[in-house]
Amino acid sequence: MTDLLIRNLRPMGAAPTDMLIRGGRIDAVSSGIDAPGVPVEDAKGAIAIPGLVEAHTHLDKTLMGMGWYENAVGTDLRAMIDNERAERRRLNHDPFRQSMRHALALAGNGITHIRSHVDVDTENDLAAIEGVIQTREALRDIVEIEIVAFPQSGLMIRPGTAELLDQALALGADLIGGLDPCNIDHDPKGHLDTIFGLAEKHGKGIDIHLHEGGTLGAFSTELILERTRALGMKGKVAISHAFCLGMEDWNRVEALLAALADQDVAILTTGAPSSAVPAVKRVLGAGLRMGAGCDGVLDTWNPWNRPDMLDRARIVAQKNNMRSDADLAVALAVCSTGGAAVMDVVGHGVETGCNADLALITGLTLAEAIAAGGPVALTVKGGRITGRNGKPVMEAP
Amino acid sequence: MTDLLIRNLRPMGAAPTDMLIRGGRIDAVSSGIDAPGVPVEDAKGAIAIPGLVEAHTHLDKTLMGMGWYENAVGTDLRAMIDNERAERRRLNHDPFRQSMRHALALAGNGITHIRSHVDVDTENDLAAIEGVIQTREALRDIVEIEIVAFPQSGLMIRPGTAELLDQALALGADLIGGLDPCNIDHDPKGHLDTIFGLAEKHGKGIDIHLHEGGTLGAFSTELILERTRALGMKGKVAISHAFCLGMEDWNRVEALLAALADQDVAILTTGAPSSAVPAVKRVLGAGLRMGAGCDGVLDTWNPWNRPDMLDRARIVAQKNNMRSDADLAVALAVCSTGGAAVMDVVGHGVETGCNADLALITGLTLAEAIAAGGPVALTVKGGRITGRNGKPVMEAP
Ligand SMILES: [Zn+2]
Ligand SMILES: [Zn+2]
Repeated sequence: MTDLLIRNLRPMGAAPTDMLIRGGRIDAVSSGIDAPGVPVEDAKGAIAIPGLVEAHTHLDKTLMGMGWYENAVGTDLRAMIDNERAERRRLNHDPFRQSMRHALALAGNGITHIRSHVDVDTENDLAAIEGVIQTREALRDIVEIEIVAFPQSGLMIRPGTAELLDQALALGADLIGGLDPCNIDHDPKGHLDTIFGLAEKHGKGIDIHLHEGGTLGAFSTELILERTRALGMKGKVAISHAFCLGMEDWNRVEALLAALADQDVAILTTGAPSSAVPAVKRVLGAGLRMGAGCDGVLDTWNPWNRPDMLDRARIVAQKNNMRSDADLAVALAVCSTGGAAVMDVVGHGVETGCNADLALITGLTLAEAIAAGGPVALTVKGGRITGRNGKPVMEAP
Repeated sequence: MTDLLIRNLRPMGAAPTDMLIRGGRIDAVSSGIDAPGVPVEDAKGAIAIPGLVEAHTHLDKTLMGMGWYENAVGTDLRAMIDNERAERRRLNHDPFRQSMRHALALAGNGITHIRSHVDVDTENDLAAIEGVIQTREALRDIVEIEIVAFPQSGLMIRPGTAELLDQALALGADLIGGLDPCNIDHDPKGHLDTIFGLAEKHGKGIDIHLHEGGTLGAFSTELILERTRALGMKGKVAISHAFCLGMEDWNRVEALLAALADQDVAILTTGAPSSAVPAVKRVLGAGLRMGAGCDGVLDTWNPWNRPDMLDRARIVAQKNNMRSDADLAVALAVCSTGGAAVMDVVGHGVETGCNADLALITGLTLAEAIAAGGPVALTVKGGRITGRNGKPVMEAP
């Protein structure tokens, strides 16, 4: 089933053509392809884009299918963290079942690759990591999942967490995460030395949540850069949110972007409407890799996010005041090839030779597809149909 | 058909009950109402809220149903204005047909009241005003429409515009609009004197677009306040966008809010993600009336906006970092009773004696209804069903 002939699709919005997939790769793109015995799908003129990439989310947090969670916590970061840790137990949250639901919902919406941060803390230990690893294996043919071992509750302030992160990496987490080294741990040196030490020990990459804005976030960024250089980790580090890159001081941001580009540090954005955020065109213009994500969906944190990268492209575009069709195409690229570049995916495209990882979206142009907001007509992963009309083909538990 | 019995609805999310509507008003709200001969609707446990209010839009701009508009204009305000004026003629834009499509789409989405700015300029004269007045009359029983005569292309820089605005008000526009008195006309005194003069002459209210941010917008706001006081127009003036109220200078904003509250100037917001905007809870806390709107939808300006106030409540909530169920209820109130207060609608509620103008939305709480994003189960206007499952009952031309 990894051979497939898709008729009447429009690669990136170009004229209608056919696409032949063989062995999970794009074998040919041209009109009137004949391939006896290969299953045929009619795209009905939909636009084919490289699979959408959910490059910043939390598969272990969603409460999808568990009834509406009435949020009475508000917006204090520490309060939200403590609330969630307690609620996991009270709600009898099952990280395998929940991450399956979330990942499959994404597969239904055109997503072929996911980078998920997964909580590691001294109360829930490795339960979330184990659950999401189980999902990663169960969905190996449906969607590629990268797992970031994430010290959501803090690292230096919760002894034992570093050891758990170490175990998570040994168990199969793909990267190590971090979180606001100043604001959460109040010990940026300790926090970052620990994380970079574990990354070095396991030979794995880093993806750090950095909500710290303005000069504080700039300081943390400089500490991250310092360690990236010292350990020769160029190209192996990403910063999620990086709100400090949205600060007003043009010169300071310019210097940070140059230093980040020099170390090939990638940026992940959600286009958070309530925060100053890195400007998409500025970050790309500085030569950085940039992806996007929806962050946590239907969890104890927020009621807005959806498991939907077309919706996220709209939010990123609105936040960046992108209006023209050309600009919307840039926003969508961040949500697709941008995230793929951050995840080091090779061959993510719609040309011959690329992986047959595709989203078929409906509209005259990419901008109309974003404006309409879906549903995604077809998700294809390695030539296999994984989503149809916004729904995953495989049923979630 | 203005009598209706709705069974199994939950007023504002409370326990299920019945609601009897007689003569377009809510006659009773209680369990097990019996009303022989009155048509019955089963709300299936949906939440009843006062009708949603689209308090800032442009019914004369949408290209809905005319095919996708490929936007190549970018984001310069003057360029967008000039582009639209030219495109109206090139596309053979029919303001009656288009405003019907837009207003009916809103009715399908739970909206019972609309305030629409409508372009008046020396190239298109009063064509748009006439078209939207025709729609206002055609939809008199479906949705209430207020028309703001709006000098989109400038006033002092385009001689003849003031005379056209004068005619528009005589023809039946309900309010007079304005636009960035400094940035567009480069003559704030001339612009505001003209607008306030026409308002006084016709005894009508004012709703001014003010995108000017920071100290410039604060200056324009002070000029607006000065004239509001001088002409005794307390309670008759609204400012749309009011981006300057989102500026960092806490003291300056505090003083502006106090002065605006003193003159009962209302604020309309779109929660624009890319701009500094007035903070909802701050504006309400200062005692101002505040409504919300989606602004132009599927027009030459932007690809993101939808004719959907549940979608707008989500955007306003995201922009204001509102996460708890209680906060989401505030965001939704701005999109309903908030806009009604700005439009001076009396009796907009779900209690006995109120107008039977309702939206029935699906969710355990108001927050879940926003998170789910619709479709609105039922729109009721004066006891008449005007929308069902997100679609208007009346067909658009
Ligand atoms: Zn996150
Ligand atoms: Zn407007």
